[in-house]
Amino acid sequence: MHRTHTCGELTIADLGKEVTLSGWVQKSRDLGGMTFIDVRDRYGITQLVFNADDNEELRTKARELGREYVIKVNGTVIERSSKNLKIPTGEIEIKVADLEILNVAKLPPFMIEDETDGGDDLRMKYRYLDLRRNPVRNNLILRHKMAQEIRKYLDSKGFLEVETPVLIKSTPEGARDFVVPSRMNPGEFYALPQSPQTFKQLLMVSGFDRYFQIVKCFRDEDLRADRQPEFTQIDCEMAFIEQEDILNIFEGLTRHMFKNVKGLEFEDFPRMTYDTAMKLYGSDKPDTRFGMQFVEITALGQGKGFPVFDNAQLVVGINALGCASYTRKQLDELTDFVKRPQIGATGMIYMRHNEDGSLKSSVDKFFNEEELQKWADAFNTKPGDLVLILAGAQPDKVRKQLNELRLEIGNRLGLRDKNKFSPLWVVDFPLLEWDEETNRYHAMHHPFTSPKPEDIAKLDSDPGAVRANAYDLVINGTEIGGGSIRIHDKQLQSLMFKHLGFTPEEAQRQFGFLMEAFEYGAPPHGGIAFGFDRLVSVFAGLDSIRDVIAFPKNNSGRDVMIDAPATIDEKQKVELSIKTTV
Amino acid sequence: MHRTHTCGELTIADLGKEVTLSGWVQKSRDLGGMTFIDVRDRYGITQLVFNADDNEELRTKARELGREYVIKVNGTVIERSSKNLKIPTGEIEIKVADLEILNVAKLPPFMIEDETDGGDDLRMKYRYLDLRRNPVRNNLILRHKMAQEIRKYLDSKGFLEVETPVLIKSTPEGARDFVVPSRMNPGEFYALPQSPQTFKQLLMVSGFDRYFQIVKCFRDEDLRADRQPEFTQIDCEMAFIEQEDILNIFEGLTRHMFKNVKGLEFEDFPRMTYDTAMKLYGSDKPDTRFGMQFVEITALGQGKGFPVFDNAQLVVGINALGCASYTRKQLDELTDFVKRPQIGATGMIYMRHNEDGSLKSSVDKFFNEEELQKWADAFNTKPGDLVLILAGAQPDKVRKQLNELRLEIGNRLGLRDKNKFSPLWVVDFPLLEWDEETNRYHAMHHPFTSPKPEDIAKLDSDPGAVRANAYDLVINGTEIGGGSIRIHDKQLQSLMFKHLGFTPEEAQRQFGFLMEAFEYGAPPHGGIAFGFDRLVSVFAGLDSIRDVIAFPKNNSGRDVMIDAPATIDEKQKVELSIKTTV
Repeated sequence: MHRTHTCGELTIADLGKEVTLSGWVQKSRDLGGMTFIDVRDRYGITQLVFNADDNEELRTKARELGREYVIKVNGTVIERSSKNLKIPTGEIEIKVADLEILNVAKLPPFMIEDETDGGDDLRMKYRYLDLRRNPVRNNLILRHKMAQEIRKYLDSKGFLEVETPVLIKSTPEGARDFVVPSRMNPGEFYALPQSPQTFKQLLMVSGFDRYFQIVKCFRDEDLRADRQPEFTQIDCEMAFIEQEDILNIFEGLTRHMFKNVKGLEFEDFPRMTYDTAMKLYGSDKPDTRFGMQFVEITALGQGKGFPVFDNAQLVVGINALGCASYTRKQLDELTDFVKRPQIGATGMIYMRHNEDGSLKSSVDKFFNEEELQKWADAFNTKPGDLVLILAGAQPDKVRKQLNELRLEIGNRLGLRDKNKFSPLWVVDFPLLEWDEETNRYHAMHHPFTSPKPEDIAKLDSDPGAVRANAYDLVINGTEIGGGSIRIHDKQLQSLMFKHLGFTPEEAQRQFGFLMEAFEYGAPPHGGIAFGFDRLVSVFAGLDSIRDVIAFPKNNSGRDVMIDAPATIDEKQKVELSIKTTV
Repeated sequence: MHRTHTCGELTIADLGKEVTLSGWVQKSRDLGGMTFIDVRDRYGITQLVFNADDNEELRTKARELGREYVIKVNGTVIERSSKNLKIPTGEIEIKVADLEILNVAKLPPFMIEDETDGGDDLRMKYRYLDLRRNPVRNNLILRHKMAQEIRKYLDSKGFLEVETPVLIKSTPEGARDFVVPSRMNPGEFYALPQSPQTFKQLLMVSGFDRYFQIVKCFRDEDLRADRQPEFTQIDCEMAFIEQEDILNIFEGLTRHMFKNVKGLEFEDFPRMTYDTAMKLYGSDKPDTRFGMQFVEITALGQGKGFPVFDNAQLVVGINALGCASYTRKQLDELTDFVKRPQIGATGMIYMRHNEDGSLKSSVDKFFNEEELQKWADAFNTKPGDLVLILAGAQPDKVRKQLNELRLEIGNRLGLRDKNKFSPLWVVDFPLLEWDEETNRYHAMHHPFTSPKPEDIAKLDSDPGAVRANAYDLVINGTEIGGGSIRIHDKQLQSLMFKHLGFTPEEAQRQFGFLMEAFEYGAPPHGGIAFGFDRLVSVFAGLDSIRDVIAFPKNNSGRDVMIDAPATIDEKQKVELSIKTTV
């Protein structure tokens, strides 16, 4: 037997017990004739003591153990003289009678400590060593726990988890597909699912009523911190429901998770329309952990001879609470920040509401005290506040720029606290968005999203104004997921495909099976999908989903640990009826 | 609101309630001035009644509803005059006040009934309609329930579910891989995992201690009833354990499932060595729902001048209990059965133990009454029994032939009852098996399986005799899964690769990352994987895994519903740096 207990469970209540422990050597130190070794496993750390007076040979063997050696010891639980009350096992130690080396270890390329000296690349290559570190392992334990709670909750609400296929069919709409050549059907390819969208809708046609799945999805897109080629969705669909039912069930799920995983209780989640979110935050995923909502002062700013405002379609700003003391340097930094190419503002105007009550702006040349007071009233400033204003000819762009500035101020003021959680439903998304590149409308959510019945008439006259029964859950400025009520009527679905620029033949070729299914009695239905990786990373207070994935890929889509992708044998290609062109 | 209740929940306790139901029209019938409609959803069927005396127009609308129309009704729960006590809602009906057609339906290509008139091909093409049938949906509800119970049990035992990657690296050893061309790494390919084997071992190196995953795996093999290109495994691994620990935990899992899903309790599962299973049943997955163990009578059969026995290396048979009354025609059928090419016996000898106590064999020319009595003693026959005997020069082949015959007799006697469950552990598998085709040894389980320590010395002298710490769980003659204690020592792993015919370079190229990981402190570990599809199909009493998969593929690997695989755009191939050669 390799152990009677784990390294995390022995306490003062176990004094005198004969025990066997196995684990990794965390560290060792000598003190007089004694050697102390911390042995570690997933459950904790226990101190071992070897006394030369008792057994010189055993103590010598213990001194020779290297870091990360795998050992097994027999011994007796005794009370520690110098206690460590920070860990559960800190009051005891094991007086070792027998030591067996189960495996030796080379010196790891970085320290297996909570704070490691290993860089990203090294830790990716030796991911199996990085996974030994508490913070990394704890993220994955959190992930496990969240998956268990999700399933428990959805099962209790009558949802059935149904596995949908991974080898499906490529649909050029949306992101790029990963494809898999078929050996048995030469010249043909499967595609890996970007989501189980059509299958979950078919399950509704099948009368499954409430479906969910925690499922891997795949997108062959260029990668960044928050994207991986394979990612995991909590995918759901319900029949005979309306938007309100879905919001209630999945708000319930989120509250269940907060309560059972983080011990946090929430009031009803606030809801905000897409239009309001864009107007107040310049973003459809506002970080509502802090206020600083946008205030538009276009009318106040114009007609005073300041060309930047006079030539603008929108003058809008935020009140950076308590920032009046920002130095010239800090203000220059902010101006540089908004002028960065990826943000693209041409400049920033500010107004200080000084502690003495006076108002001082960067455009005093154009605006007198009385006019600035109107600004102050509009922004509801108090002494000590700082107003930051952007302006431009394209309102949407200006709002996006101000969104970035607002988040930057939030960061600087420490308002984006990782231990605070602010959930928000954003509803009434537009059905379509204009794509400059292809010069046509695209589905904002996906082609199966239902327009609001009262807006269907506008599909021809004003497509951009048609709202959808579509909704997103946002937490702390991160889009956790979204969904919609679907079209369940073949005619309406055909009309949508037409508006999205599909020819009837294209629509038939790609989605014919779904259109046909709709002819055999499709119920009203809708659903939602949460990004599970993102949900875990938000719960863990992390910026990147990479840290909540056991074996992530790097920005080139490589797994540097196993060195994948890799070349394959010529024989395999021949069997698959393919050639490589490089 | 689409419904206040489901179609499965209203009972006599709800009399007088105003309710709203939604669902599919199952069937309708007219009786005098009334129309009765069965409305169906996942939860059940409720009878609706439309009375012309109350509302002629509504009744006319109801008469026009077709099968599988999706409807919504408002009405009052009333008591039925003609009750159906077989269903929970059978004592009530809904007197309908309002009817809305939510969607029309074309006539389905087959009946949506428990017993359908649809052939396999049609039901695969319209799988979303087949899934409406109770038996098919119930299989998937069973699957959901089993997955929930598996997770509940393993979580309670400290296992963490960790998602391992789907885009990994091709390893030519084993079955054929599905591959995925990498756009970002031109000329290179990912492979889809045949199992998460190496990743779960790395998780043990990482100290995760107890891992599991219910996970999709992929094998590009030619298909048959019990194989699908994508299938689901319950994949597990544990550190610091011995074989006994794994058998206990996963026997516990299986018992938990039997109890919580089927309401069945079991004694400790019997265990049998591979050698014994082959000797007594001619199979490493014996169906132990019935006895009829093999009896070898080589010595008794030889030296009497019967050339078939005299030239054989093995004479072996079974006692087909109570079959002495088999007619000449039935015996000829059995002889034809064993002579079929896929079984390949040259003939079958029988001996009747007649009701009057006399013995009568098909080889009376060579064996007298006294000699036949020795056979009867060996097979422990009673009056009414029938002994069936095969013989041949290759004992392994003869045993396999007799295994088929035994199963056939079991079928004919109705001994393979789908409601009876007989679990069995088969242990002590050989480490290696000789492959005639490549003229070398292959790993019977996989290359990471540990030989039994006491057999390691035989690796050079008698490789075929080396036993592994490997085990299978068999239920009703179906291999549910298997596993092994792994090698955790780099030297032993290298030795194994050598014995399996890998050059050091090949081993390094394919498994270098694992070998390297073993140098950084790998703990003793082992694991097991159950075929989830098979487990569900055994629990459901089905022969094929196809019936427990929501969207299965046919024998050419095609999804005939969505018509995948399919050709892809030339542009996609160019982006992926591949060409098709057909």
